[in-house]
Amino acid sequence: MTLPRIGITLGDPGGIGPEIVLKALAPENSLPKAQYIIFGSGFVLEAEMKRQERKLVIPSFEESRFPSLPGLFLWDIPLPDEGITIGIPSKPNGQASFLCFEQTVEQAKKGVIQALVTAPISKMSWEMAGIEWLGHTDYLSHLYPQAIMSFWSDKLKVALYTHHLSLKESIQRIKMDALHDFFTRLDRAAKKIQPDGFQLLVAGLNPHAGEGGLLGSEENSEIIPAIDQARKKGVKISGPFPPDTVFLQALDHPDRWVIALYHDQGLIPFKLESFEEGVNLTLSLPFIRTSPDHGTAFDIAGQNRANPQSLIKAIELASSLSPLF
Amino acid sequence: MTLPRIGITLGDPGGIGPEIVLKALAPENSLPKAQYIIFGSGFVLEAEMKRQERKLVIPSFEESRFPSLPGLFLWDIPLPDEGITIGIPSKPNGQASFLCFEQTVEQAKKGVIQALVTAPISKMSWEMAGIEWLGHTDYLSHLYPQAIMSFWSDKLKVALYTHHLSLKESIQRIKMDALHDFFTRLDRAAKKIQPDGFQLLVAGLNPHAGEGGLLGSEENSEIIPAIDQARKKGVKISGPFPPDTVFLQALDHPDRWVIALYHDQGLIPFKLESFEEGVNLTLSLPFIRTSPDHGTAFDIAGQNRANPQSLIKAIELASSLSPLF
Repeated sequence: MTLPRIGITLGDPGGIGPEIVLKALAPENSLPKAQYIIFGSGFVLEAEMKRQERKLVIPSFEESRFPSLPGLFLWDIPLPDEGITIGIPSKPNGQASFLCFEQTVEQAKKGVIQALVTAPISKMSWEMAGIEWLGHTDYLSHLYPQAIMSFWSDKLKVALYTHHLSLKESIQRIKMDALHDFFTRLDRAAKKIQPDGFQLLVAGLNPHAGEGGLLGSEENSEIIPAIDQARKKGVKISGPFPPDTVFLQALDHPDRWVIALYHDQGLIPFKLESFEEGVNLTLSLPFIRTSPDHGTAFDIAGQNRANPQSLIKAIELASSLSPLF
Repeated sequence: MTLPRIGITLGDPGGIGPEIVLKALAPENSLPKAQYIIFGSGFVLEAEMKRQERKLVIPSFEESRFPSLPGLFLWDIPLPDEGITIGIPSKPNGQASFLCFEQTVEQAKKGVIQALVTAPISKMSWEMAGIEWLGHTDYLSHLYPQAIMSFWSDKLKVALYTHHLSLKESIQRIKMDALHDFFTRLDRAAKKIQPDGFQLLVAGLNPHAGEGGLLGSEENSEIIPAIDQARKKGVKISGPFPPDTVFLQALDHPDRWVIALYHDQGLIPFKLESFEEGVNLTLSLPFIRTSPDHGTAFDIAGQNRANPQSLIKAIELASSLSPLF
């Protein structure tokens, strides 16, 4: 078996990204055997090592020289001319983090790496740098419109049918054909991870999943027909279930995946159950992409206080799934 | 101090109501000192005692005879002519449970009891009996339009701005004046419970609480102005917070109360955090009303397998709050 090759970005250099990347990749965490390639500025990394009083020699990655040596490598991406600022969003921070991300995606597209793990970026830094995307998933969805935003922890798995839309717009997207397409796409992606697939549990849109039409019509007119269609095609799918109990049904059942119809329906329960353990996993791409389930935490950046746990989980998941890609 | 007097209904006689009422009121649970009056059929109670092999003599309640004796009493409400059925909804079940509830509310209105605790009814039984209300809170909201549906546990407190409406209709109700009215009403009710009041945390409607207008306009146009107005009137209120983290902010802070704008926004986190411990508390009434946070559980009715924990919590809460009414 070839060794998986996993690209890891530093995220916004003014946030906790560089700190948690170094902490996560420290030898004491005994990550699975792989080639881990940090995409980012060697200069930023060195400054971070000093702060952590950690001495690591990270060789530059050259594919021809290290075809199958496990370990940690650097894909150096020099910073733009202006300096970065720690603890606040800025234009150079945005430029730096976008550049790293773009180059990592490029290598994933080419198949040089099988997985990419992204440390948090700042949407505001991107905006200041004139970058139009709302975040990693938004950029990936532009390249791969079939991409699915999902969340993974040992306790709970959630996929989002819609995400960064107003609640009103999310409701407008509840249409049978698009739902059916999403269900089959998620099923295909899930089967790549686990040949038997997962049991997909669809949350209703309305209280009590519409209570037979008394509390909303979308279940009867759109959601139930879409589930029926997908089931006929062999997808293991059921629902719509009352949204306030479906997550209890799925909790601690590793083979169940809840389909949430809008951002907070999925993220309220996920963040409650999997805080610091949760991984953001983009499905339905030709490679694996994971990231920790938190932001740049500018308020504690540069203070050596950040917890790398969620990033460690993201790296472990990328590592365990990448042989499948 | 006068002894609090608490009415307890049996709920749907075909569900687990009678079973959990008897179990909850058993001497071994050492409930707080009060006059507990069961409103329901002595016949149903006796059948349940046989199933539980429990022998209790429950004297009939007569206000004049027992002005201040603590203990357990029965307010007998004979069944309609037809028999009840255990394990399924039916018309006689609906008639019986509605009658009990109506008479208990009547006594609460008169001030004979200071609190009422309701065991679960079946909406379907009510419908079969031609009763137009969707449930206890719906009936109470008709008598007291200012009633507030809230949920209480040691870990989390949630109040619902809207509840049994389609999600689309809930969004349409997001209007500044109505929100402001709700905030001040909740604050008044909360101050009755705790003179210093509670900190009210308002959840946003949209992902990331609208992200400054990028992901929905209701925060800017309706919610923020309503919060500002209430704050000017001295209400301790803040928000709107991103819905996917506001519950983490409130968790294990007994003096914080999250205002959820729609049914599942509040009930997804509440049921995850407080399963079997949660109490449904109707606020802003001239008396206290609590109930367990589960249904009739017809599937296990009559089998002596039901867990009375949530009802015990409901009785304890009613008991601790009733001296204030």
